[in-house]
Amino acid sequence: MSLPDRLRGVLSPVLTPFNPDLTPSADGLVRHCRALVEQGVGLAVFGTNSEAASMTVAEKRALLDALLAAELPPDRMMPGTGACAIGDAIELTRHAVRAGCAGVLVLPPFYYKGVSDEGLFRAYAQLIEGVADDRLRVYLYHIPPVSGVPITLGLIERLLKAYPGQVAGAKDSSGDWDNTAAMVREFAAGGFDVFPGSEVFLLPGLRAGAVGCITATANVNAGEIMQLYRQWQTPQADALHDRVRRIRGIFQALPMISAMKEAVAWQSGDTAWRAVRPPLVELKESQAAELRRQLTEADYRMPMAETLAYAKG
Amino acid sequence: MSLPDRLRGVLSPVLTPFNPDLTPSADGLVRHCRALVEQGVGLAVFGTNSEAASMTVAEKRALLDALLAAELPPDRMMPGTGACAIGDAIELTRHAVRAGCAGVLVLPPFYYKGVSDEGLFRAYAQLIEGVADDRLRVYLYHIPPVSGVPITLGLIERLLKAYPGQVAGAKDSSGDWDNTAAMVREFAAGGFDVFPGSEVFLLPGLRAGAVGCITATANVNAGEIMQLYRQWQTPQADALHDRVRRIRGIFQALPMISAMKEAVAWQSGDTAWRAVRPPLVELKESQAAELRRQLTEADYRMPMAETLAYAKG
Repeated sequence: MSLPDRLRGVLSPVLTPFNPDLTPSADGLVRHCRALVEQGVGLAVFGTNSEAASMTVAEKRALLDALLAAELPPDRMMPGTGACAIGDAIELTRHAVRAGCAGVLVLPPFYYKGVSDEGLFRAYAQLIEGVADDRLRVYLYHIPPVSGVPITLGLIERLLKAYPGQVAGAKDSSGDWDNTAAMVREFAAGGFDVFPGSEVFLLPGLRAGAVGCITATANVNAGEIMQLYRQWQTPQADALHDRVRRIRGIFQALPMISAMKEAVAWQSGDTAWRAVRPPLVELKESQAAELRRQLTEADYRMPMAETLAYAKG
Repeated sequence: MSLPDRLRGVLSPVLTPFNPDLTPSADGLVRHCRALVEQGVGLAVFGTNSEAASMTVAEKRALLDALLAAELPPDRMMPGTGACAIGDAIELTRHAVRAGCAGVLVLPPFYYKGVSDEGLFRAYAQLIEGVADDRLRVYLYHIPPVSGVPITLGLIERLLKAYPGQVAGAKDSSGDWDNTAAMVREFAAGGFDVFPGSEVFLLPGLRAGAVGCITATANVNAGEIMQLYRQWQTPQADALHDRVRRIRGIFQALPMISAMKEAVAWQSGDTAWRAVRPPLVELKESQAAELRRQLTEADYRMPMAETLAYAKG
């Protein structure tokens, strides 16, 4: 089995649609993934914005199997597989690697806070050695505002030295450009692929040597973000950058996951898309109305929205 | 099946011993639980200090089964069953309830931060309705320094109103006495049992109307903490309080879980007790030496330590 090409470009932590009883909708996820792939967006399924932490390992395995059965391309997939219990992380990572996924995005164990780099090194080492598969490509997931457990530059250096073949890159969702720039400066030349966690850093990232971005709002603004990615070296780049920033700002002012689901519900005409799992809650109607108003004012339109309805008649 | 009496007194989030390959040692856990029960300490297995977050649901189910097979008393058990994915929480909670455990200690879903009381209410409601068993007794676990997700007084009020039979109490590990006092003041009269998360608050807690405490250091100082609990209304209480505070202070100045395991290893003569799962690390030898020095200076001795060795010859 040959290895897929390294992932690059724009990936989306794919929103997970739920049925009215809050079970995941495999059909809805397949539809959404198809639309994203068709627009050129890679599939970082089971990310923070996928409500992955709210799903069991068994649910995530079943969803991944459904995507593969629907012939979505594993070489464009970077499922999130990190967990507090390394046993859970190993199980889902192994499943992803055997399915041919090009990479996995791995949160550190995130319950205990203030842990040492030595402890986090051991956690990643135990995962890599537990999976024990040369095809494994690990992307380290740095998202301290949510996880509370940062991935330091020193940790990356140690992991790269110990597992140069497996440690492939990182997603930096710190929102701290200086940190993203430091990751690129220190490690990109050695083949460590850095993805900023927002399209706001896509243009500066590409200019600095990042390979793309993994961004939640690609769920709802794939077309414009891909246009920026494809034209980043043209004179239009800065205007495209301003445009995607504007749309992101509208979503970011609200609870993002619920706001994105609201937008898909509105654009697809399928209100089932509003469902989120606890501890998240859907937008209040006043928030939803304000979201629609601002998006309308910004001439927003979601491409392929009509293909996303999974529950309505 | 009649209901066990309400839990009260001193409970310990029981340390989980691991084998050299980091699998849990059921034999070691049984030995430790036996020693705790013999001293009068209840079993809050699978707590923060049990490294419960670092174990899979299957591992925790198997350990609970081993404790029951060893005839440890379920009416003295309050296993931790909270999880980010409600499906995992339901599975382990149902297992505990069917085993006859007197209660379960339930963390809120702890990945997403800044979530609303409405979202947390739904998470607990989904757990309670998913388990659907009248014997279920839920203790809410408030530990914001670790979980990052507080259990507010407003949330407790809503849950008590919706599920008066199932919502039995709380463990308050905020370290904020004012919050513990407020929980007692607002809800204890209605049968809501408050356990401060440290023996430092045992005496003031009992004086205010709390029913005991759930404290990590009961793993290593059960005798003295139980003595304080039994004699809290005697003239010796304040001196006993000062004594347990002193011992706790020694452990608390170090990474607590690793320090407690080091103390058990030292006192039992079984170095296997040192093992922790990533992302935790065992104490450095210099820290361990300082711990032993301070405990020796404090005339510390762990009761029943000789029964705890599980791995040595």
